[in-house]
Amino acid sequence: MQKLFVIKIGGNVIDDDASLQSFLKDFAEIKGAKILVHGGGKIATKIGEKLGIQSNYVNGRRITDEATIDLVTMVYGGLVNKKVVAKLQAMNCNAIGLTGADANIIPATKRPVKEIDYGFVGDIDNSKFKIQNLKLLLENDLTPIISPLTHDGKGQMLNTNADTIASTLAVGLSKEYDVRLIYCFEKKGVLENIEDENSVINLITKEKYQQLLNDKKLFDGILPKIDNAFAAIDSGVKEVLIGDAKDLLQNVTEEVNGTLIK
Amino acid sequence: MQKLFVIKIGGNVIDDDASLQSFLKDFAEIKGAKILVHGGGKIATKIGEKLGIQSNYVNGRRITDEATIDLVTMVYGGLVNKKVVAKLQAMNCNAIGLTGADANIIPATKRPVKEIDYGFVGDIDNSKFKIQNLKLLLENDLTPIISPLTHDGKGQMLNTNADTIASTLAVGLSKEYDVRLIYCFEKKGVLENIEDENSVINLITKEKYQQLLNDKKLFDGILPKIDNAFAAIDSGVKEVLIGDAKDLLQNVTEEVNGTLIK
Repeated sequence: MQKLFVIKIGGNVIDDDASLQSFLKDFAEIKGAKILVHGGGKIATKIGEKLGIQSNYVNGRRITDEATIDLVTMVYGGLVNKKVVAKLQAMNCNAIGLTGADANIIPATKRPVKEIDYGFVGDIDNSKFKIQNLKLLLENDLTPIISPLTHDGKGQMLNTNADTIASTLAVGLSKEYDVRLIYCFEKKGVLENIEDENSVINLITKEKYQQLLNDKKLFDGILPKIDNAFAAIDSGVKEVLIGDAKDLLQNVTEEVNGTLIK
Repeated sequence: MQKLFVIKIGGNVIDDDASLQSFLKDFAEIKGAKILVHGGGKIATKIGEKLGIQSNYVNGRRITDEATIDLVTMVYGGLVNKKVVAKLQAMNCNAIGLTGADANIIPATKRPVKEIDYGFVGDIDNSKFKIQNLKLLLENDLTPIISPLTHDGKGQMLNTNADTIASTLAVGLSKEYDVRLIYCFEKKGVLENIEDENSVINLITKEKYQQLLNDKKLFDGILPKIDNAFAAIDSGVKEVLIGDAKDLLQNVTEEVNGTLIK
């Protein structure tokens, strides 16, 4: 099977011009099929403040009201996405920026209201997810750049977590590609000691993960990422890498500078 | 050759929810290959005012400074474009929203500074314009929704007139499609008497146009649209229609309710 890289970047890359430029240069140089999923960064909050749109949180989770979905559609789907696309085009990477609504690549459902009403937040509808149009783009040397937005198929855009979009795409495409899913974040990898940037664990297998959990060595914040990674692997993704964008993308096909989960 | 509709809508459709919904319903029902080009509408100015971005005009033409190109990238490329895409998806039209930077569909050059510096405004680079990627989408039953933005190939987004984008696409694609270019605007067509909405001229040929010009019957504002229309026809477009969105799209393939230029 052909190799495919699905790479996710978040605010720490997007919010810093130099980091973004450096990341995109490395990304453009990856040969073969690749998809970039980007998060939002802090710019939506900044622009929202200027527009008088309040950020509402319940239990630490942001609520996406009507003003906020318009805001993130503008900022993630327009400003951030097209900036990335224009920069990649300048690097000879034929980028095409999309939300989950475009070509219906990521059908979703508005999250049901239980204790909390999250507002216009989309849970991906895996039963309706089809890879056909993404495959069409990839086969024609186009590089999809995906913003963290989906839609409900009834005319409403929805806000969706970029990590989840990346793993959904990786799993869906693993039926036809040899997928390496890469989560770039602010650390050099999963750390054995959160205080020590050099304590990167280079390989986490299920056995190793269980042992780390038993020893209570891992920082709580990293657990969902590792759980997601194993879920992706159980569903067909070949391997997942977690670490710093710069380390991971340089020699991406050759060696591991970060944490490999398999 | 296969038929292709290239349809342009402006602020009078975009700014009014009911008009937009009604237009999109008619648009979704057109069978076969179609492309929608949308202008910006007044929402960019409204959001710009809230963000403290001043609109600067020289000789009646808007100057696109750095804050403004970011604003229109957000609003045209994000908010307006994705709203249209999500609505069309709900109408079983497989829309894919793009700027000219995406898949490099519309390469442009920043307008050279002469007497006036228009800022980040793009003049389309016809010599670099290729239809390959648009054709790929059309052949796979996708409907491109194009926002009035291009890029310079060096990483910079550019603001570009939607009428110009529509005629460039129509001309480029006329090599492989039987193109009908439709400009929707606030009147029912080209009027023989600007005071009388019922004085629509149903057919303008070059001879008729010359006669109308000699008789000084036409409203000055319509002349660039008619000139563009003839330029498109001279370059291969089969026919151009100018008129009201609702009139033009209903029975679009059967009769003319507006002004036909050929």
